[in-house]
Amino acid sequence: MFFASDNGSGVAPAILAAMTRANDGYARGYGADDAMVRVRDEIRRLFEAPDAAVYLVATGTAANALAIATYCPPWGAVFCHTTAHIAEDECGAPEFFSGGAKLILVDGPHGKIDPEAMALALEKTGSGGVHGVQRGMLSITTVTETGTVYTPAEITALTTLARAQNLPCHLDGARFANALVVCGATPAEMTWKAGIDVVSFGGTKNGCMGVEAVIIFDPAKAWEFELRRKRAGHLFSKHRYLSAQMEGYLADGLWLQLARNANLMGARLATGLAQIDHVSLVHPVHANMLFPEWAIGTHARAEAAGAVYYPFPAPKGRERARLVASWSTTEADVDALLAVLRG
Amino acid sequence: MFFASDNGSGVAPAILAAMTRANDGYARGYGADDAMVRVRDEIRRLFEAPDAAVYLVATGTAANALAIATYCPPWGAVFCHTTAHIAEDECGAPEFFSGGAKLILVDGPHGKIDPEAMALALEKTGSGGVHGVQRGMLSITTVTETGTVYTPAEITALTTLARAQNLPCHLDGARFANALVVCGATPAEMTWKAGIDVVSFGGTKNGCMGVEAVIIFDPAKAWEFELRRKRAGHLFSKHRYLSAQMEGYLADGLWLQLARNANLMGARLATGLAQIDHVSLVHPVHANMLFPEWAIGTHARAEAAGAVYYPFPAPKGRERARLVASWSTTEADVDALLAVLRG
Amino acid sequence: MFFASDNGSGVAPAILAAMTRANDGYARGYGADDAMVRVRDEIRRLFEAPDAAVYLVATGTAANALAIATYCPPWGAVFCHTTAHIAEDECGAPEFFSGGAKLILVDGPHGKIDPEAMALALEKTGSGGVHGVQRGMLSITTVTETGTVYTPAEITALTTLARAQNLPCHLDGARFANALVVCGATPAEMTWKAGIDVVSFGGTKNGCMGVEAVIIFDPAKAWEFELRRKRAGHLFSKHRYLSAQMEGYLADGLWLQLARNANLMGARLATGLAQIDHVSLVHPVHANMLFPEWAIGTHARAEAAGAVYYPFPAPKGRERARLVASWSTTEADVDALLAVLRG
Amino acid sequence: MFFASDNGSGVAPAILAAMTRANDGYARGYGADDAMVRVRDEIRRLFEAPDAAVYLVATGTAANALAIATYCPPWGAVFCHTTAHIAEDECGAPEFFSGGAKLILVDGPHGKIDPEAMALALEKTGSGGVHGVQRGMLSITTVTETGTVYTPAEITALTTLARAQNLPCHLDGARFANALVVCGATPAEMTWKAGIDVVSFGGTKNGCMGVEAVIIFDPAKAWEFELRRKRAGHLFSKHRYLSAQMEGYLADGLWLQLARNANLMGARLATGLAQIDHVSLVHPVHANMLFPEWAIGTHARAEAAGAVYYPFPAPKGRERARLVASWSTTEADVDALLAVLRG
Repeated sequence: MFFASDNGSGVAPAILAAMTRANDGYARGYGADDAMVRVRDEIRRLFEAPDAAVYLVATGTAANALAIATYCPPWGAVFCHTTAHIAEDECGAPEFFSGGAKLILVDGPHGKIDPEAMALALEKTGSGGVHGVQRGMLSITTVTETGTVYTPAEITALTTLARAQNLPCHLDGARFANALVVCGATPAEMTWKAGIDVVSFGGTKNGCMGVEAVIIFDPAKAWEFELRRKRAGHLFSKHRYLSAQMEGYLADGLWLQLARNANLMGARLATGLAQIDHVSLVHPVHANMLFPEWAIGTHARAEAAGAVYYPFPAPKGRERARLVASWSTTEADVDALLAVLRG
Repeated sequence: MFFASDNGSGVAPAILAAMTRANDGYARGYGADDAMVRVRDEIRRLFEAPDAAVYLVATGTAANALAIATYCPPWGAVFCHTTAHIAEDECGAPEFFSGGAKLILVDGPHGKIDPEAMALALEKTGSGGVHGVQRGMLSITTVTETGTVYTPAEITALTTLARAQNLPCHLDGARFANALVVCGATPAEMTWKAGIDVVSFGGTKNGCMGVEAVIIFDPAKAWEFELRRKRAGHLFSKHRYLSAQMEGYLADGLWLQLARNANLMGARLATGLAQIDHVSLVHPVHANMLFPEWAIGTHARAEAAGAVYYPFPAPKGRERARLVASWSTTEADVDALLAVLRG
Repeated sequence: MFFASDNGSGVAPAILAAMTRANDGYARGYGADDAMVRVRDEIRRLFEAPDAAVYLVATGTAANALAIATYCPPWGAVFCHTTAHIAEDECGAPEFFSGGAKLILVDGPHGKIDPEAMALALEKTGSGGVHGVQRGMLSITTVTETGTVYTPAEITALTTLARAQNLPCHLDGARFANALVVCGATPAEMTWKAGIDVVSFGGTKNGCMGVEAVIIFDPAKAWEFELRRKRAGHLFSKHRYLSAQMEGYLADGLWLQLARNANLMGARLATGLAQIDHVSLVHPVHANMLFPEWAIGTHARAEAAGAVYYPFPAPKGRERARLVASWSTTEADVDALLAVLRG
Repeated sequence: MFFASDNGSGVAPAILAAMTRANDGYARGYGADDAMVRVRDEIRRLFEAPDAAVYLVATGTAANALAIATYCPPWGAVFCHTTAHIAEDECGAPEFFSGGAKLILVDGPHGKIDPEAMALALEKTGSGGVHGVQRGMLSITTVTETGTVYTPAEITALTTLARAQNLPCHLDGARFANALVVCGATPAEMTWKAGIDVVSFGGTKNGCMGVEAVIIFDPAKAWEFELRRKRAGHLFSKHRYLSAQMEGYLADGLWLQLARNANLMGARLATGLAQIDHVSLVHPVHANMLFPEWAIGTHARAEAAGAVYYPFPAPKGRERARLVASWSTTEADVDALLAVLRG
């Protein structure tokens, strides 16, 4: 009953097999391996973006912070949701990589930036001439930190506001696949067709060992990104193992299949929770993350039964939790947890 | 005939097996996995340093730059050899991570810092009061970038100069094992007993997939290092695979055995080269890197025969190369290259 | 009728005279001038802080950003009011100088941080272990950006919360004198006795040409501050003119006398505004800054009459302004403006 | 007998008078004062550069570091002379402002970069692809730190090498006027006609209180410079006093007249020294700085007589000094020093 995070799961067998196959013989280092050519081609094909620059790094924080630093000057403001991973969970990596950019937190229900709040934040920022930081860029996360998924139209609404100010737009897709299979769009529709300039395309949380692609639709930015990646210690010498992970992840639609399982288990959990009297859900469940609220004492019971997850601050007299399903979560896992929660 | 770099080799089978074993079930992320406890204990034991803080990152540049940033303030000078990896091959990572520290290049024959030059550099730096950068730290590399190895006494000579100025001392041991098996010292003798405060203990070049330990002998520095690692995107969520690599690497002396093979193949190559008339060696051969100089036309012949290595700038009428043997280099590889070079 | 800012005023005659006197002969540069010894002694005496380190810079942004960088690590959070100068009007200087620290905006009525909001912000920040930025420091401004003044007790309430977490506390006193003469405290009571560690003690807005003292109560921080000042280009070679300004400013209580005039003119303006039907005040008037709201059309009339000030965003059907009195504002200036506003 | 530095002199009377005149009434802050319009126009006229962006800051370090940060990315190399002020005397300001750029020290006799050494440094830097820092910019100083002056042809020789690699070129003209009156060129010939993109145009050392202009010939860089200046705390609220200094400095050729006196006194000193047996000159004397070497015991005699200057490291059995003449140095000062040195 492990629901602490999707990064607590192991590596999907097909991906580990791809890495093992990649272990034969010698390979050129630092991204010059043959597999990287195939990965680049496949991602360009999937995103219908024949000119996109594609790079691999090993962590989501690296992907996000490098993307932001490449697009936002030190005196720029990065507009993001109050709960965004870049704001809450990266120990200031965007500030570090960018040389001191400022995150402007914009609110909105259930982890999604509210377009009106965004318009207001845009209006307020940078209107004081040289005295304040300047409008820099937009960063959207989907799946959001509260488990919801933007529709392409919702993304477009925000990027339209940003692009009217000539701001580039970043998509933090640490759970890109989980969002994609929900919103029924193509990768292109969820990104550049919706106004996105640069994507953190996650693999780690969805069955890889540690690999994220950064996809930059404007190849003019490629060289700067490469220098920033190297300078930050994120260019791997034995790069072939990053390539192999990503190649295995994308082969035969594995990435979508893994995400579908995670989301399905999320839905099964949601359905089960809805049938328990003392449980309610704090946020709508779109993908594989759930935020239930329940009766006091449930944590103790669940912990005693061996359930693993993060408790969350709750209103008086109640308890809250974050539950995350993953590519490896089984129906049995879900049902066991539900049984415990039912009490 | 691959002699381009030791990072062109794959992962040693026992290490890959350890990673595969680590793939079972769920694990806590971000370094809280059980295997990391074992790795920490084993490294403390090997280094006779029961209080040392031990962290894993995936690249040598990350290990070096994080170690330097933890020990050197932005206005500090890092004394290192003119050819040091941190000076030549990390695209300014030490400057980036430290917030703008300055590398002071100190010369010395065959990649080793000359103590007299070091004394002079120390005397010159920071003597102008607030106007110049201040003495910050010392960074030594062994195996050096030109293939030589410091004796513990040579390391001590340099750290003694540094410590007289209260400067901390870093050892870039991207090829730590290759150096250790040559100088016949214990890990403790090569590091803290020789005045070293923080070590980049490399695994990647010697048979791992991508893992380096940073060993900090003063645990008071641990928390700052952890924050810097996270903030730089170098804390892995699926950390268990870093732990597994390092655990497999250290088990049953594998790390020393792999390094011994690399060095032995280096020696075999050196012996063979010595018997070829038109070939001489630019630097003494201590470990697994060789810098031969040979007759014009040799590059063309070697390339045609399928040999892979880096050519180096040479005096007129001659050619130079860097040849690196690794854990996976075989006698047959070496002999085949020698046959080609013989012409 | 110039009410745009107190920095639109010139230099008080006695201060200009002190600078002119300082022009005789040669002087040692970079803060080693004799006058700086006298300034340091006088500030230590005024603040009852015989060990304080005292430095001069030329701008308020430099004073604040250097103070913050000296006390807050790159991964630290600086708690400050939503409207703080460091947050709104320094183009990200705190982020730049500190290497990427994050400002956490805390709200509260009329420009003052609300202690409950502060407690909440403290509780929320840094509770996620290594994943988020850490609690770094507190920065309070008085006179606030909305013209109010903290009592020493109010300052103490906030610093007590901060110090319970071992956080250092900064006071942005760009208008220190204006605040001091209002709250009736001694400089010591308004600063270190109220839990403040480092003060930006402003001179520029109150009759100097361009000088601010940074007062650091713990001399152990002095050398780091000096290096940061030099490295930021804020150490003046002809430092004697900074010293002379500050010496002239402090001599014979001039600084208090200038602030009293500014505040008196602020009060006269407030009294006059209270007697105009269509005018109300958005914030209480404690010192020399007023934020009136008035009937539509008033801006046009005032501008036509030659009044200079900043209009502010207002609710529909109304207009708002910021009016600042200074050391050189006269009763005639105030009465002329009131006459215009009366219509 | 003050020869320690030209920044030990006071403010030239005409400049102080201009500042006093500027003290009347109210003025718009932050560079929006009327005098700045006149300064900009005058500098554009003097430099025959009608589109140049012109900004004022108060210190030479600020001028240099802001100019460099505006033109060199964090991963760039700044080529400068081994003895350059930016390398030796700014406590790492270029690294701080640029976000960690690396200074590549290029040698050459008497403080001037040797074109062959520059060509070699260019060839070596950035040729390793993404692994090393990239060629960033060139920074030349004239008057050099050893008192010599580049001819426009010598400047052109260096900028031609840099521009062949598309590198921008900076001139550190802390002693611009002293260099100009020596080399007999126009400001345009010494700068943009010689391939310079951005100039630090010093005033402080030549009779101002604390003002340097940064002249950017490509106005497309202006806005970035403005943001960097503000963010670094170098935008003055009471900017009118910077403008007034520069206006007074440039009026009626005062700047040239002050520099001519300094250089003339330097020449008189050089002539006198040449007639003293035990004295020789380490560097040619082009302007107002001299580096004599003399018999042991001379320092003691000079100090006893009240001479103030910096001693320099000397070969065994000899002593060395730096002597700087300024706008306010008199023939009597020079002759008095010579008398002392004669013994």
